[in-house]
Amino acid sequence: MKNTATLLVNCPDRKGIVATISDFLYRRNANILHADQHQDAEAGLFFTRVEWDLADFELPVADFAREFSPIAEQFDMRWRLEQSSARQRLAIFVSKQLHCLADLLDRKRCDELDCDIALIVSNHSEAESLARFNDVPFALVPVSPATRPAAEQHELALLAEHGVGLVVLARYMQILSPEFVSRFPCAIINVHHSFLPAFSGARPYHQAYERGVKLIGATSHYVTEILDDGPIIEQDVTRISHRDQLPDLIQKGGDLEKIVLSRAVRWHLKHRILVYGKKTVVFD
Amino acid sequence: MKNTATLLVNCPDRKGIVATISDFLYRRNANILHADQHQDAEAGLFFTRVEWDLADFELPVADFAREFSPIAEQFDMRWRLEQSSARQRLAIFVSKQLHCLADLLDRKRCDELDCDIALIVSNHSEAESLARFNDVPFALVPVSPATRPAAEQHELALLAEHGVGLVVLARYMQILSPEFVSRFPCAIINVHHSFLPAFSGARPYHQAYERGVKLIGATSHYVTEILDDGPIIEQDVTRISHRDQLPDLIQKGGDLEKIVLSRAVRWHLKHRILVYGKKTVVFD
Amino acid sequence: MKNTATLLVNCPDRKGIVATISDFLYRRNANILHADQHQDAEAGLFFTRVEWDLADFELPVADFAREFSPIAEQFDMRWRLEQSSARQRLAIFVSKQLHCLADLLDRKRCDELDCDIALIVSNHSEAESLARFNDVPFALVPVSPATRPAAEQHELALLAEHGVGLVVLARYMQILSPEFVSRFPCAIINVHHSFLPAFSGARPYHQAYERGVKLIGATSHYVTEILDDGPIIEQDVTRISHRDQLPDLIQKGGDLEKIVLSRAVRWHLKHRILVYGKKTVVFD
Amino acid sequence: MKNTATLLVNCPDRKGIVATISDFLYRRNANILHADQHQDAEAGLFFTRVEWDLADFELPVADFAREFSPIAEQFDMRWRLEQSSARQRLAIFVSKQLHCLADLLDRKRCDELDCDIALIVSNHSEAESLARFNDVPFALVPVSPATRPAAEQHELALLAEHGVGLVVLARYMQILSPEFVSRFPCAIINVHHSFLPAFSGARPYHQAYERGVKLIGATSHYVTEILDDGPIIEQDVTRISHRDQLPDLIQKGGDLEKIVLSRAVRWHLKHRILVYGKKTVVFD
Repeated sequence: MKNTATLLVNCPDRKGIVATISDFLYRRNANILHADQHQDAEAGLFFTRVEWDLADFELPVADFAREFSPIAEQFDMRWRLEQSSARQRLAIFVSKQLHCLADLLDRKRCDELDCDIALIVSNHSEAESLARFNDVPFALVPVSPATRPAAEQHELALLAEHGVGLVVLARYMQILSPEFVSRFPCAIINVHHSFLPAFSGARPYHQAYERGVKLIGATSHYVTEILDDGPIIEQDVTRISHRDQLPDLIQKGGDLEKIVLSRAVRWHLKHRILVYGKKTVVFD
Repeated sequence: MKNTATLLVNCPDRKGIVATISDFLYRRNANILHADQHQDAEAGLFFTRVEWDLADFELPVADFAREFSPIAEQFDMRWRLEQSSARQRLAIFVSKQLHCLADLLDRKRCDELDCDIALIVSNHSEAESLARFNDVPFALVPVSPATRPAAEQHELALLAEHGVGLVVLARYMQILSPEFVSRFPCAIINVHHSFLPAFSGARPYHQAYERGVKLIGATSHYVTEILDDGPIIEQDVTRISHRDQLPDLIQKGGDLEKIVLSRAVRWHLKHRILVYGKKTVVFD
Repeated sequence: MKNTATLLVNCPDRKGIVATISDFLYRRNANILHADQHQDAEAGLFFTRVEWDLADFELPVADFAREFSPIAEQFDMRWRLEQSSARQRLAIFVSKQLHCLADLLDRKRCDELDCDIALIVSNHSEAESLARFNDVPFALVPVSPATRPAAEQHELALLAEHGVGLVVLARYMQILSPEFVSRFPCAIINVHHSFLPAFSGARPYHQAYERGVKLIGATSHYVTEILDDGPIIEQDVTRISHRDQLPDLIQKGGDLEKIVLSRAVRWHLKHRILVYGKKTVVFD
Repeated sequence: MKNTATLLVNCPDRKGIVATISDFLYRRNANILHADQHQDAEAGLFFTRVEWDLADFELPVADFAREFSPIAEQFDMRWRLEQSSARQRLAIFVSKQLHCLADLLDRKRCDELDCDIALIVSNHSEAESLARFNDVPFALVPVSPATRPAAEQHELALLAEHGVGLVVLARYMQILSPEFVSRFPCAIINVHHSFLPAFSGARPYHQAYERGVKLIGATSHYVTEILDDGPIIEQDVTRISHRDQLPDLIQKGGDLEKIVLSRAVRWHLKHRILVYGKKTVVFD
């Protein structure tokens, strides 16, 4: 694996942005590996993601912010620089249904996810043996309406202790408080088992079955304070028919959940997602 | 084309239904071409569709009801018998956007739809030349809030005059009154340009664009008194990304609309759809 | 889980088959749970699958063959009766890539596969820890061109010893001999990582990348003596673009492999697949 | 519609390409509307497409080549500049099946295709009335093995006379000679009714039906001297089952053909396709 830097920029669209950024990097001998950009004409916004090899780069990463600041100010940029060498640490929250957790752990073992899985948190004990087999610390944190605040405090302490930067809700059936969510802005990924905004809230497969839809879906999204309303990262659907009863929907939907959640996690880890308003740009 | 009869049955699920129906047909020498059935275990319902060649059938169709009635009563069946020789006549309602209308007319010319297109109704004149090229009578019926009741009376008279049994709303932007709808139960097919129940109502592509979904869809459904709430016949989706602006959604969605609407019309004409509650069984 | 019997029939299409079978079952008080049928008009063949609850069934399963034989002879049927209580035992063959194996084991743990996984066979040792975690016996059987016949003898002995009725090749990179294959007719399922018949043989992702296709696929099929030529059970595809390099194809394709292989295994275990010639009927 | 210029570049990947091009455009006050780029790491190639508004651009288009040449030479570029004001003229070749032709004409009427349809050529007369309705000149050019060379000469003369720059084979069942093809390099688009490279050659739906595949596809591609072997522009598939007989495959496949062909034509007209070797980059 190369040691790379990734610059992510979001700013008002104006002439000269690409010329300025690419000139800045070229002068410092960046060997660009991937570059992508997007203009949202309606919103008047510009987005770019540039990844380059740090091997030949003539600017120490520590000095990047200082040298890049004038450009960022000139174009009113929101920006960040990510390094592939900064290994990310994630925590997976799960309840009793383990298929998404098992899928993420499998992908980690197959080297599909470039991160450390630092912690598994659950309000039930079912996940413990999977955690142990994968050498991941497991924290049992029961939650009831009365104990939720204390439970969340405990969870936040665990996340801090394990240096977690990304929380993945892998069919975790508890709703996190706004306080918790505000501690991880654009750093909590949830999978909802419907094609949002259809069937938000509880029991989406039951809702879909009642409504008689011909396709079911799943959605991965960043968690915000409003339930099932955060910026959508990925969605997928599969066809069903009258032959599919509720257990068939649940089984078919499970495959969708694994796919949309794992894609979202992989893209997040590769710094491919830019959020603006309620939307995402995914440079895939 | 063979001259066929199609029996459609919907009844409480009980032992002996298939044995009884198939014995009834076998004794009258029916050469069965297609048969399909479905049990909805949760609702306790049984559905079947049997199509047979009338060539060797030893019961005159005119006598079918009399001979089949005891069975129907025994099993508490809702049933109907359709003959392929009874050519169906449909009317297409359209506004200014003609892509779904043109698509249906193309399919008719390519022998994909086994029916007569008896009439095209529009509140605008754009569709007239297409109607004339395809030798279909065209009726311009302008609609305003004030004239709606009179306009609908005019339309109902036209439909009666042309012997229309199926009304297809091919992106007809007017809402039909409950009185109109009640005259064509399960015989008005609409296409809605979203993946229902997401984005019901007006401007669904705008809604989808605002929400930042990663797939857009289209839905064909029978029209009921409640807007966008009728039994869904078919749905399909296509992937979009941040690169797609609103006009791209509209263009990509147009292809979906044509496909889900034409499938619904074709299945309806082939008597492949059974409605129960808010759901459909489609024997495809 | 109900204790059910499933009758699978394949015969020349003639009048009276459904009437005769359904009457036979009705007279013995079968409570039918699922029934499906198919007529291949071109080939003049009839297929059916009927599943019923054995609770009320008034014929002991041991006597079924004797009583059903006259019907089978009359209609020239190939048929078999399967019981849900006869727990099936499968073996998974794998090489170094473990994603399909891990997926099947996960599904087994989540109760998605109704069977016993009796044995994991590999020519490498990578799978051993997964086998141990899932409490499945693991057999390391190295294979080289010289040792292949002896290795296959060893494998056949292991399969016999563990009572295996279905062999699943979960990205097992060895080609089985015709002798081996002939011992498990329609009972070896392979996953090939392309949309067959495109890119049969070695390194299909490389072939797809070279050809510049816009979709990649995966295929699960029964293994016959001719490589990648057996009856196809399931296929699926996913979209790629010029942005996808070879590792992206391999990663995206891995998800397809898991899905088409697990569907095939599940359908086989539920006795939903009928093979005729090079084709399958899948009553899903 | 804005008056835009589009620069398409294909060259060996080196540092500084983006910086140089974007600086060149920025200095001449280009208001960039879309920009996309791609690096093929394996092949060591760089591709870009930049589209800008000519309204503020301070370099007359007539002088572009002279001023851009030094850059093109420095980076060993293959490049071209396209103007949206240069209206493209295309010819559609068709045989007896008219669904793809009708679809393209519908899209043209709905303003989905930004071009002039200058000519329809057919070896049969079925298309004539569609041509007349759409005000497109129609040329009947019968073809037999003996008359093929003369027929092609006639066609080439017609194409020259009508100023045609793009030939679309909309289910034209004749094979063009290498001489004909060489006159329109990367300017003949064909639709093949299979998921290439599966089922190349004649009667692909029959081949697919025989093989028992579970998905059927369609492919649009540039025509080269080798049959069904040119660079693929777009592919799509749809699911089939054992319930689908050959006519169902043909009907379902027809929808795919329309979609993949129209996408290819639209992308070509928008100068979104770059060809290299047997592959395409499609900046969608």
